Amino acid sequence: MTDVQKAVDFVRANRERYLSELKEFVAIPSVSTSDEHKDDMARAAEWVAAQLRSLNMDKVEIMPTGGHPCVYGEWMGAGKDVPTVLIYGHYDVQPVDPIELWENQPFDAVVKGDNIYARGTSDMKGQVLASIKAVEAVINTTGSPVNLKWLIEGEEEIGSEHLGDFIQKHADMLKADICLNPDAGMIAADLPTITYGLRGLCYMELRVYGPTKDLHSGLFGGTIHNPAQALIELVAGMHDKKGKVTLPGFYDKVRKLSKQERADFALLPVTEQFFLEQTGVPALWGEPTFIPAERVGARPTLEVNGLLSGFTGQGSKTVLPSHAMAKISCRLVPDQTPEETFEQMKAYLEANAPKSIRWELLSLHNAGTAITDPNSAGVQAMAHAFETVWGKRPLFKREGGSIGVVVQLQQYAGVESVLTGFGLPEDNVHSPNEKLHLPTWYKGIESLVHFIYNMSA
Amino acid sequence: MTDVQKAVDFVRANRERYLSELKEFVAIPSVSTSDEHKDDMARAAEWVAAQLRSLNMDKVEIMPTGGHPCVYGEWMGAGKDVPTVLIYGHYDVQPVDPIELWENQPFDAVVKGDNIYARGTSDMKGQVLASIKAVEAVINTTGSPVNLKWLIEGEEEIGSEHLGDFIQKHADMLKADICLNPDAGMIAADLPTITYGLRGLCYMELRVYGPTKDLHSGLFGGTIHNPAQALIELVAGMHDKKGKVTLPGFYDKVRKLSKQERADFALLPVTEQFFLEQTGVPALWGEPTFIPAERVGARPTLEVNGLLSGFTGQGSKTVLPSHAMAKISCRLVPDQTPEETFEQMKAYLEANAPKSIRWELLSLHNAGTAITDPNSAGVQAMAHAFETVWGKRPLFKREGGSIGVVVQLQQYAGVESVLTGFGLPEDNVHSPNEKLHLPTWYKGIESLVHFIYNMSA
Repeated sequence: MTDVQKAVDFVRANRERYLSELKEFVAIPSVSTSDEHKDDMARAAEWVAAQLRSLNMDKVEIMPTGGHPCVYGEWMGAGKDVPTVLIYGHYDVQPVDPIELWENQPFDAVVKGDNIYARGTSDMKGQVLASIKAVEAVINTTGSPVNLKWLIEGEEEIGSEHLGDFIQKHADMLKADICLNPDAGMIAADLPTITYGLRGLCYMELRVYGPTKDLHSGLFGGTIHNPAQALIELVAGMHDKKGKVTLPGFYDKVRKLSKQERADFALLPVTEQFFLEQTGVPALWGEPTFIPAERVGARPTLEVNGLLSGFTGQGSKTVLPSHAMAKISCRLVPDQTPEETFEQMKAYLEANAPKSIRWELLSLHNAGTAITDPNSAGVQAMAHAFETVWGKRPLFKREGGSIGVVVQLQQYAGVESVLTGFGLPEDNVHSPNEKLHLPTWYKGIESLVHFIYNMSA
Repeated sequence: MTDVQKAVDFVRANRERYLSELKEFVAIPSVSTSDEHKDDMARAAEWVAAQLRSLNMDKVEIMPTGGHPCVYGEWMGAGKDVPTVLIYGHYDVQPVDPIELWENQPFDAVVKGDNIYARGTSDMKGQVLASIKAVEAVINTTGSPVNLKWLIEGEEEIGSEHLGDFIQKHADMLKADICLNPDAGMIAADLPTITYGLRGLCYMELRVYGPTKDLHSGLFGGTIHNPAQALIELVAGMHDKKGKVTLPGFYDKVRKLSKQERADFALLPVTEQFFLEQTGVPALWGEPTFIPAERVGARPTLEVNGLLSGFTGQGSKTVLPSHAMAKISCRLVPDQTPEETFEQMKAYLEANAPKSIRWELLSLHNAGTAITDPNSAGVQAMAHAFETVWGKRPLFKREGGSIGVVVQLQQYAGVESVLTGFGLPEDNVHSPNEKLHLPTWYKGIESLVHFIYNMSA
């Protein structure tokens, strides 16, 4: 019997215990946003730490941050010549409101058919426990062929506000060959999924100033460049007629998609029809030479997130406003950077702003892009694990949003992430009746066992 | 001695009485916006009616409206073959706040040097009294060579809300050959001014709808036409690069300016420098082939009065908004109409709105344009009166704003207006320390005497 088969057998023999441990974990109402659950947050961190201690890690610590603590675990017993896998997770959960829509008590898990219902089952206590149980199976059968680190935070559901500082401060401690992040889920129970790229963000505010005060549009209209009009002209010019962003140099550093990547994007079930149904728009929009999944995952955008000028109440007021504001953000893809994008926006405005107005550009928020080479050892280890357990190649996708921890691990500790997981779109995460599909979860634990062995191959 | 000289002599002999009557009139705190002054409003209407009765009118009535009453007076004794002059005015005044900035009690007039200070002296009790005193001088010396009507309302400072209905209901009663409206003032004490045109208004709200709810800009950005972006593209396209409005047919009915009109506009002291100083903008804007005074007075515009979409608070929110709104208004000039402009906007949107969004256009407020032929008898009668008294041709201008009564008299009763008056830009109307320049006021009364005789010539 191979090593991996021993560990997989262990998993199969222990499913009932895993289920009861999951019930125990989700029974702790670790709602990070709520002060009244502060003790529960500590209990949840302690519960995770106890689980890690049961794996005979070299070190398990509950480490402080500016907010809820991180649970850190480390076992370097496999030696310097084999890879180190960092496993990321979070032990906090979303609030349960509106509680009246739950069919069971949200922290008292109920199994119905193939699913277990409780807050945190899918997002992501079930995923954290899956990775712990996979390691447990490996350790209890053959011993781990790779070194292991754990970073289980308590603030993901409230924006991971203190995690960046923590990662920056403990960058050496967190160094690893790959981070396994099972918080991303899969597209369907029969479609295991690996997310290998995330878009970045450059969020700006453009302010256009005209007259020193609001004017009467009758007495001045026709002589003054209305700042709302000037803002509109500037923002309209940020796209050409084909929907391409016109900021100078905007696309220069955009990585071309490989043939394999485009083939992978084409397999994703996020079709035109999907986007039409999800959004209710009468027709899609965007770069015509890319399919929607590529436009969201692998192409940069420029969006207007907010507009404000003049009179916006009910009825009419004939004001010629003194100023106008647009919130504008660019979703960025490798190898764009928010800093360069901000400079490109400034250059665009310097070249195009008319002399009849004054303007100001503020930088409000930046997030770097993240990408993991789909041919890297970590991604391939996970892909092969899925092939073994699901009998098919996983889907490869890039996410359109940004996930702080992935960017920060890459930026501060040089660790790339494999984003995956065993949550499903229908799991009601962040909603009442959150649930986890148990057959998928059990397969997930097995696939993580394979991933660990594959990493040492 | 000519008839007019007799009347002018009468005016000169009675200046002190006029001044004390003005003090009496402004002592009534007829603040139309304030409930606590309701009795004062009635007293002011009664005061005006008593003045008209003293002129031996055929009829003087205080007539109800939906709000404060109108004082109506009529004397048709000059016969059917001579013109009828309708004199418009208002007996209500602005509030006095901030009262601490007044140097005297606002309703206790004080003469300092050439000026009399009190609320309503310039806007427009002084103007109403000037017209009454001019008629009094004519009646008390030679008798009036023209028929006379009076419409003195009590709601001008609160938007003349009920005046349109009143004029429509009493259109026959108000019929006249010309309306003298002395509420428009003059540009400077040595620059008598006639306003012969007003711009109209077509005020709209454009709503653009995209996805059925706000979306995450990361998860959907690139596939969905952001409605704020779509709105911006549509509104940006409403002007061409030269600042011309692109709505189909927008300029078709715009009256060309005559050589005389352009020469008159060129005389107005509202230069580029004036607009720069008044507004604080770094540079002016508008149709390059027209001077600023023409652009404001005689050219139509399209202004953005308000913009709202998505997230407009402090900081950043990566929302792809579900809808966006612009308040847009066109200032119109003869012979444009708000109804046609609205249809032109609809046609523009039908031709240009992309299939990726839905839109809706609301009509919020309409006002017609108004123009009086500068060569008409009424305007010429007033112009010659100014020439006689001031020794120079008056300035001829068109106002950029809209004045309801002028439009409604034209629309409902077929009466064109001559807008003039003896208030000055430095009179602090609507502000503390409102005042009236007495030498100009006395000359104004004389010029109205001349106007009456000129009308009969």
